[in-house]
Amino acid sequence: MPRSPTDYVNSVKDGRVVYYRGGKRVDDITTHPVISIAVRHASDLFGVKERLYEDPNYGLVSKYFRIPRNTNDLLDRYKLIYEDTLRFDGLFNIVQAIGSDALFSLMIIAKKVDKRYGTNYYSRVMKYYEHVVRNDLAMAVAQTDVKGNRAKRPPHEQEDKDMYLRVVEVRDDGIVVNGAKIHTTQGPVANEIIVLPYRALVENDKDYAVAFAVPANTKGLKFIVRPVLEYDGNPNAVNAASRFEVEALIVFDHVFVPWDRVFMFREWDLAGQLAWTFATYHRFTAISYRAATANLYLGASLYAARANGIENAPHVRDWLVQMIMYKEVLSMGAMAAP
Amino acid sequence: MPRSPTDYVNSVKDGRVVYYRGGKRVDDITTHPVISIAVRHASDLFGVKERLYEDPNYGLVSKYFRIPRNTNDLLDRYKLIYEDTLRFDGLFNIVQAIGSDALFSLMIIAKKVDKRYGTNYYSRVMKYYEHVVRNDLAMAVAQTDVKGNRAKRPPHEQEDKDMYLRVVEVRDDGIVVNGAKIHTTQGPVANEIIVLPYRALVENDKDYAVAFAVPANTKGLKFIVRPVLEYDGNPNAVNAASRFEVEALIVFDHVFVPWDRVFMFREWDLAGQLAWTFATYHRFTAISYRAATANLYLGASLYAARANGIENAPHVRDWLVQMIMYKEVLSMGAMAAP
Amino acid sequence: MPRSPTDYVNSVKDGRVVYYRGGKRVDDITTHPVISIAVRHASDLFGVKERLYEDPNYGLVSKYFRIPRNTNDLLDRYKLIYEDTLRFDGLFNIVQAIGSDALFSLMIIAKKVDKRYGTNYYSRVMKYYEHVVRNDLAMAVAQTDVKGNRAKRPPHEQEDKDMYLRVVEVRDDGIVVNGAKIHTTQGPVANEIIVLPYRALVENDKDYAVAFAVPANTKGLKFIVRPVLEYDGNPNAVNAASRFEVEALIVFDHVFVPWDRVFMFREWDLAGQLAWTFATYHRFTAISYRAATANLYLGASLYAARANGIENAPHVRDWLVQMIMYKEVLSMGAMAAP
Amino acid sequence: MPRSPTDYVNSVKDGRVVYYRGGKRVDDITTHPVISIAVRHASDLFGVKERLYEDPNYGLVSKYFRIPRNTNDLLDRYKLIYEDTLRFDGLFNIVQAIGSDALFSLMIIAKKVDKRYGTNYYSRVMKYYEHVVRNDLAMAVAQTDVKGNRAKRPPHEQEDKDMYLRVVEVRDDGIVVNGAKIHTTQGPVANEIIVLPYRALVENDKDYAVAFAVPANTKGLKFIVRPVLEYDGNPNAVNAASRFEVEALIVFDHVFVPWDRVFMFREWDLAGQLAWTFATYHRFTAISYRAATANLYLGASLYAARANGIENAPHVRDWLVQMIMYKEVLSMGAMAAP
Repeated sequence: MPRSPTDYVNSVKDGRVVYYRGGKRVDDITTHPVISIAVRHASDLFGVKERLYEDPNYGLVSKYFRIPRNTNDLLDRYKLIYEDTLRFDGLFNIVQAIGSDALFSLMIIAKKVDKRYGTNYYSRVMKYYEHVVRNDLAMAVAQTDVKGNRAKRPPHEQEDKDMYLRVVEVRDDGIVVNGAKIHTTQGPVANEIIVLPYRALVENDKDYAVAFAVPANTKGLKFIVRPVLEYDGNPNAVNAASRFEVEALIVFDHVFVPWDRVFMFREWDLAGQLAWTFATYHRFTAISYRAATANLYLGASLYAARANGIENAPHVRDWLVQMIMYKEVLSMGAMAAP
Repeated sequence: MPRSPTDYVNSVKDGRVVYYRGGKRVDDITTHPVISIAVRHASDLFGVKERLYEDPNYGLVSKYFRIPRNTNDLLDRYKLIYEDTLRFDGLFNIVQAIGSDALFSLMIIAKKVDKRYGTNYYSRVMKYYEHVVRNDLAMAVAQTDVKGNRAKRPPHEQEDKDMYLRVVEVRDDGIVVNGAKIHTTQGPVANEIIVLPYRALVENDKDYAVAFAVPANTKGLKFIVRPVLEYDGNPNAVNAASRFEVEALIVFDHVFVPWDRVFMFREWDLAGQLAWTFATYHRFTAISYRAATANLYLGASLYAARANGIENAPHVRDWLVQMIMYKEVLSMGAMAAP
Repeated sequence: MPRSPTDYVNSVKDGRVVYYRGGKRVDDITTHPVISIAVRHASDLFGVKERLYEDPNYGLVSKYFRIPRNTNDLLDRYKLIYEDTLRFDGLFNIVQAIGSDALFSLMIIAKKVDKRYGTNYYSRVMKYYEHVVRNDLAMAVAQTDVKGNRAKRPPHEQEDKDMYLRVVEVRDDGIVVNGAKIHTTQGPVANEIIVLPYRALVENDKDYAVAFAVPANTKGLKFIVRPVLEYDGNPNAVNAASRFEVEALIVFDHVFVPWDRVFMFREWDLAGQLAWTFATYHRFTAISYRAATANLYLGASLYAARANGIENAPHVRDWLVQMIMYKEVLSMGAMAAP
Repeated sequence: MPRSPTDYVNSVKDGRVVYYRGGKRVDDITTHPVISIAVRHASDLFGVKERLYEDPNYGLVSKYFRIPRNTNDLLDRYKLIYEDTLRFDGLFNIVQAIGSDALFSLMIIAKKVDKRYGTNYYSRVMKYYEHVVRNDLAMAVAQTDVKGNRAKRPPHEQEDKDMYLRVVEVRDDGIVVNGAKIHTTQGPVANEIIVLPYRALVENDKDYAVAFAVPANTKGLKFIVRPVLEYDGNPNAVNAASRFEVEALIVFDHVFVPWDRVFMFREWDLAGQLAWTFATYHRFTAISYRAATANLYLGASLYAARANGIENAPHVRDWLVQMIMYKEVLSMGAMAAP
């Protein structure tokens, strides 16, 4: 069942543990002066009728979850993302796109792992996918570890073993993980956090080869939040802005994950493929929405040039042409990718 | 009927007037030390079996003349050009591609002119097209005028009126033209020269709005030849090189063109569209063959790096990645264009 | 007599008319949360002992006002600016440098104007210079007009004649000017505002060919203030920052200037030379302080690289080398200029 | 005694062993169609009166050999090189400049080696220097080894030990060396070849830490010649060109060097400093002559723009400004270096 903006807003008041910058805990993210804007931006996605389609299995659900099976499906996905980005003033509304990028890659890699190791990850992924689709959830993907000393590459070489997220306990009913992931866009306002492993593991890193999903209010999860990019630390801009997103450092402090939500566990040789497959889907998403954003910048620049009477000045035309080329390279990347 | 390499070589011994650089007239281009290499390169195209297909109207003919009617046709054309470029050591064999680029654009614009002016150019273009297809001709396209003082834009403003090619006499049986076109790749070794007008004409430039085709041995045509690009003026390289192309300054000294080979005459308002439509087809051709050339450069660079033991040096990897990006941007341009 | 930081701070509490952004009037710039930081930064210059030297004519005064007469004087000026920039955490303290850049250029051009027109501007400039030196004043230079429609170049072509600052009334005791200048760094915290004309005047622009100096609290002057660059609109950063500068849009609403402070009046043919001569002095100042700033960025980057264990990663070394090249090009520009 | 062009030309007919490209041995370089042009170019230097000055020790000798002792000496050297480059149509005449760059660096490093090792290299260098100055010799510097597998850095790690030039025998009267140096500009037309070591030696590379000078007709020396850069392999250009230089791969096949011409022998820890000091002098030479060359290119471009009526086209002005910036950065580098 598609959710309304109100449904979504209510769903994120779930007791999750959120801090704004170095400050104190945020009791209600839906009323916090900064985070509430990211909540409202995300909620707007749920008000877009064009987002929905009638799926033969699941009924009326979000197009973002439609598994692309051919060239045309991918071109449809490009258009969906492009148009939504225009709809939201050039700021892509990421909360269902990034999660589906992760789910599509998990479907592909889970099958490979199952084939090599005789596991049953694919059925777990599909069961989780149905849960997401039917409940019209908002998702974030936590991939980038804090990493520590970058001169040391395989995670197990770090002095502090928690610099990369890892399994610290294996139980009958699931696993317990420790670590921290940074730059998780819209993590603090998502319903679910999907966790993917680092891309370059060696055999000694087995405990770091782990993928899973947890609700945002899971015990042991802590979000430390800031606005993304240009709004960073700028309450004036925050007050003026109609919409923006937040990002988070997510601390995993002995977080328990039940087996049916574990999608990779110690299969270190396929962790890199999972990371790259997700990145490939997500680069497709990114060039799609950036083409739309670039189009808006182009229009804004043209109006600014006209306001100063310089739209025909040769150097200004050169700059506008550069922007057109940038936009078109992105578009043609998206169109050629399938 | 497809021609053989020998057929083609014999066909260019037709009395055409050719000079090599500032020197004396070349009696036989097929034996001239420099031009003969361009002849041999062009002749090789006629030896490629993969070039041919069975057309419902014309029988076994060159794929280069197949009119692209949809996305798949264009992707096929991309592959044809890409593979022929690999086949000819990275040097695209242009003598049927560029002519078909011009013919396709003439088909589109002739229809527009006919509709606006009640002319019958389209039927002339199609009749000429059949002549080309059935006789498997090699063609060149002469577009760039010598231009003179570039500070003056419309051709009629030039002091010397012949700086842009123009009609100097109108007769019952056709027109007489004067002027000169530069940078005509493989012009001196083609069977036919297709002439297209300048892209930015105004009403006073009517006599410059002219498109037509003439055989290379037409009275009044003079080719002044040099090798293209990296071989320019380098007999050593010429002696060493297995293949290259030549280009020419073509002088039109009171050249007569019969009406059935005139495809535009004074319709100045559509001349720009004709120039741009040709350019669009030809840009597609160019990114297709340059992607192939780039691929060969990439391979050569990789081998050079390995020979010096530096294929893993970070700065060398950066350069290789730059080449891959260049190649892929060309490829994705070709793939996204349709 | 050299002033102390306290002297300076007291001197700017003089009733000047200042607005912060679009808001209401600022009663006391020395206590305003944003502007006070720029005041304190400027005041720090007056606490630097190394700034002073014993001048044969004026006694102990600021080195910034020492007229450079040879190569060594200019190299000394480079070192003065470079070292002060390091002293102030990479943020150059502009309030005496930019004013002296303007005064040095006025000295050169006033002599030329006097020679051509039989005027006595040079003696006015020197009298004003002595006033500045003896009172150890803080100065700003207002050069850039708001300009309006940039497609129209000479100021008199603008529909709104006040788009460039101009003389609107000539009186026995002086002139009255109207207009607005933008991007005046530290204007709101200076003692004096030196006004220079636009660089490209024609004869019809005579009323725009005007140079003069006024105290910051002159009737009719209004400062509309914002922080420069990276602190723009960021109170968080403002609160955290130890120092920054402000800039202003300065409105001149029927401002009266007595004749002894008028340094150019209708000599339109030398206005461009004045603008360029000032720019040349000020480019020298700018490459001097930016070399110092770049040096600090370089050090910060090196520490950041070390903290992540990547100071020997080839791509990081490339970036550091780029920074070194940037810094050295600036330095060698400053050293070669004399 | 200054030599005349004829003196110089006669001096290089000395039996030296020269091959042109992969071809057969050149009997007389002064009549060879390609190399003779480089000979004549070099000979022109000996006809320049401005090249000479009265030295207190040596009488009338070449300014190129004047040891720079202060800032003014270096600025004089900059002007000497700049003006000679204009004099020779933008092609710097390197045969005394590069040799003096090497001699100045040998003077500095020989003193350091003598101090550290108790050797007497400095007196050998000065004796050789006097020989060069008094006989007005033309010189080349051979620095770059052929190197082999670049993935291996210290020379001794190469499989083929001769990939870097090294001492293969130590005799009572001198040393015997083997190896090959590439890219030796004007080597084949110089009187003397000065050899400098590789810049990054380790202790095991002791036999590679060798510097010395030999006449060009020394037994065991073989020059394999090609024209530099744009004339490479282009006899047409060669015939048309008034001047150019050649470069050589110089093979050292058991070449004997007497002790008084050996300037470094196994002092591996100072070899890098010698290489870098030479490079520093020679970078100064290079930015001096390239500033002059750039100035000529700038003028040529301006004339070309005017000939096409486009000297005021904005994109052409941009390019001309880029060339001016390039030229000025070189000049200011040369001026700031001292």
